[in-house]
Order: sequence, then structure tokens, then C-alpha cells
Amino acid sequence: MTRVLSRSDIDNLAQRYRANLINSLSGFKPAVLLGTTDGTTHNLAVISSVVHIGANPPLLGMIMRPHTVQRDSLGNIKKQGFYTLNHVHTSWVDKAHQTSARYEVDESEFDAVGLTVQMSEHFPAPYVKESSIKMGLKVAQHFTLLNDTEMVIGEIHELHIPNDIIAEDGYADIEGAGSACISGLDSYHSTSRLAQYTYAKPNVELKQK
Amino acid sequence: MTRVLSRSDIDNLAQRYRANLINSLSGFKPAVLLGTTDGTTHNLAVISSVVHIGANPPLLGMIMRPHTVQRDSLGNIKKQGFYTLNHVHTSWVDKAHQTSARYEVDESEFDAVGLTVQMSEHFPAPYVKESSIKMGLKVAQHFTLLNDTEMVIGEIHELHIPNDIIAEDGYADIEGAGSACISGLDSYHSTSRLAQYTYAKPNVELKQK
Repeated sequence: MTRVLSRSDIDNLAQRYRANLINSLSGFKPAVLLGTTDGTTHNLAVISSVVHIGANPPLLGMIMRPHTVQRDSLGNIKKQGFYTLNHVHTSWVDKAHQTSARYEVDESEFDAVGLTVQMSEHFPAPYVKESSIKMGLKVAQHFTLLNDTEMVIGEIHELHIPNDIIAEDGYADIEGAGSACISGLDSYHSTSRLAQYTYAKPNVELKQK
Repeated sequence: MTRVLSRSDIDNLAQRYRANLINSLSGFKPAVLLGTTDGTTHNLAVISSVVHIGANPPLLGMIMRPHTVQRDSLGNIKKQGFYTLNHVHTSWVDKAHQTSARYEVDESEFDAVGLTVQMSEHFPAPYVKESSIKMGLKVAQHFTLLNDTEMVIGEIHELHIPNDIIAEDGYADIEGAGSACISGLDSYHSTSRLAQYTYAKPNVELKQK
């Protein structure tokens, strides 16, 4: 049975129920760890709001909530201007989720959940050693949206990626690399490829790659 | 072997290779069909840039490229102010991908790929009948980003969802509903749940739901 909810039906839901429901509707989301530093403490936060903005220049966006557990990460980004994005592997989604606990400001989520800081010679924010795909970004645009969430757009300055997952055409097999995805606020998933298609043209039968 | 690319390494990649690579890095993305209308022709476009903005009010964002095949959908949204987002089911990802072909302005992608228009009494943009989860949205904020892509944020005004996938706490089991996800520009995936966790607390062992 399909349920049809109007806007006022949605507004009348209990707060927690509505949060869980609406957070499920955007579809599957990337499971990513955001690495930042205040110079002393290295911060790590699981996020699911990363979105592709452009390839040239290479830009990724993310939506941050300034009045939540993400406050410290956002503060570090504002102060330093650099951050890392690290793919969560399907074998340690529990550690990724545990970073969402409200640790003290001077406590590093790296230590608390058992993930390893990896510093790069050419980039000032901490990477997650256990992540197979990781990126160092510099803030390129930062602004507040209509509901007081903040959008941070970063330029990729450094990319670490396993050579053997990159196809001839540049596609990176993130499923092969073990990247996880998220639904709702707390459900973690692995994936299975259904098909990969060539460029679609009108009135021409679709071909698999 | 891990490959480390600097920003200039990325800038020096061939255009198509770079597009495929960078589009893979944001992680898994939702497979969603964007439904719009100019009053005569109903338009359908597969998008993978939907992002959760907030639950109260219920807001979803998406990134649009004005100089691509998305031009007609964006034009319809600007003119009418309404659009639908419809989850792509794992059993017809080929039809979803085929909507990315460059059809004529007066040609409906619904007809061209074999998906069915569903109109609602209370909402003016076309839904995809075959989608189990579908939302009607009204534009709430619309602006241009640093690389001339456009971000459209919409308020959910109507939601169609199978009753039996909604958990007691409001979480919607989109895997159970058969929703697909995307990696890169052209790879479609189904998912398998690894775990769903309760709220994380410092120094307390994580529990599965």
C-alpha cells in the first residue's frame, strides 16, 4: 500500500520520526570521513552529504550542520581552510559510525574509534590511513543555506587512489575498492554492480561497457 | 599500488578521463529521475546529485548543469517552480540511463524510454509511475555556484511511499524498496545492508538496531 503524505502531514510527524523519514528520501549517500585539525587535535566525523560539483576544476560540496556534533570539524575548516575526505570501507563501518558520538573537543576521534592518522608531506589536514580513496581539499566557497545549514565547497588538491581500480577511461571502481554507502542516518550498505552503460543516444539501443 | 595525484597532475589529465575519475570520487550517489513539464511535454532526466538539506522543513538540494542535456529540465523548473524526484528501481536502471540521451525539446523522455507519467491531483509536475518512492517539490532556493553550475533546493510538498518499508522510528528501507545507486557517470548498483546502528555515544560499545 502506498502512503501519500502532504506537506502538512509531514509537518505533523513527531520530530525524530520525521528526521529518520526525510533523511531516507534523498536515496543512497556516500559514506565518507571528514578529517580536520586544530593543529593539536585531529578530528574525524562521518558525513553522508558529499556531492559532486565539477571536474574541471575538481570540486566537491558538502552540507554541514553548525549546531551539532559537526561543530568542531566546521570550526577547524573555517580556521585552517583545509580538510580531507576519506572513503569508508565496508569492513569498518562500525568505526565510521562511532565517530558520530559527541567526544570532548580535545579528544581525537581517530584514537577513540581506532583509525590511524596519515599525514602527507604536501597537505596540512589528516587523512585516514585505512581508507583506500582519500582526498585533500582546500575551501573554495562557503555559504549558509536557507535553513541555516552551511555548504562548503572544496577544490581537490591531492588525491590518493589505488592504481588498479582506475579503468582506461578514468572511471574509478569504488565498489572494487570496498567503498560503503549510507541510507537514512544510520544504515550502512555494500553494493553490487548491475550494469555500466556507454553514452546514451536517442533511438539507439543502450550498450553495456 | 596507491597513486598520488597533485592538483596539477589532475589538471593535466585528458578531459574525458578527468571527468570520469572526478565523478567517481564523491562516492556512491542516489539514482533519481527528475520529472518536469512545460505544460505540453513532460521531461525526465536521470540525476545523481540529490543531497539532503534538512528535515524540518523537508528540503532536498540538487546540482544542475545549465549547458548540458539538463537544460530543458532546468528551464521547466525555472518557469514552473515545481518538479518531482523519483527513485530509480534496480530492475529498470537501463531506462533511467536512457533518459540522459539528447532528445528533442518536444520529445518526452517518458515515452522515449518507456516509463509512465503519473499525475497527482494536488501537484502540477509529472511523477514516474514505476518508482516506488516519489516526491513533489517546490523550489525554495536557487543560485549559481562558483563553477557556473546551479544549485536548486526544493521543499517536499507531497510524498508517495510504500507503507511497509517505513520502520517504527520513521526510517524508510529504500533497499527493501529496490532503490538503485550510481558510481561515476554511468555505473548502476544495488545494495546489501551491512549494519544499522543505534545512536553512538563516547566510550559505549556500538549496538546494532
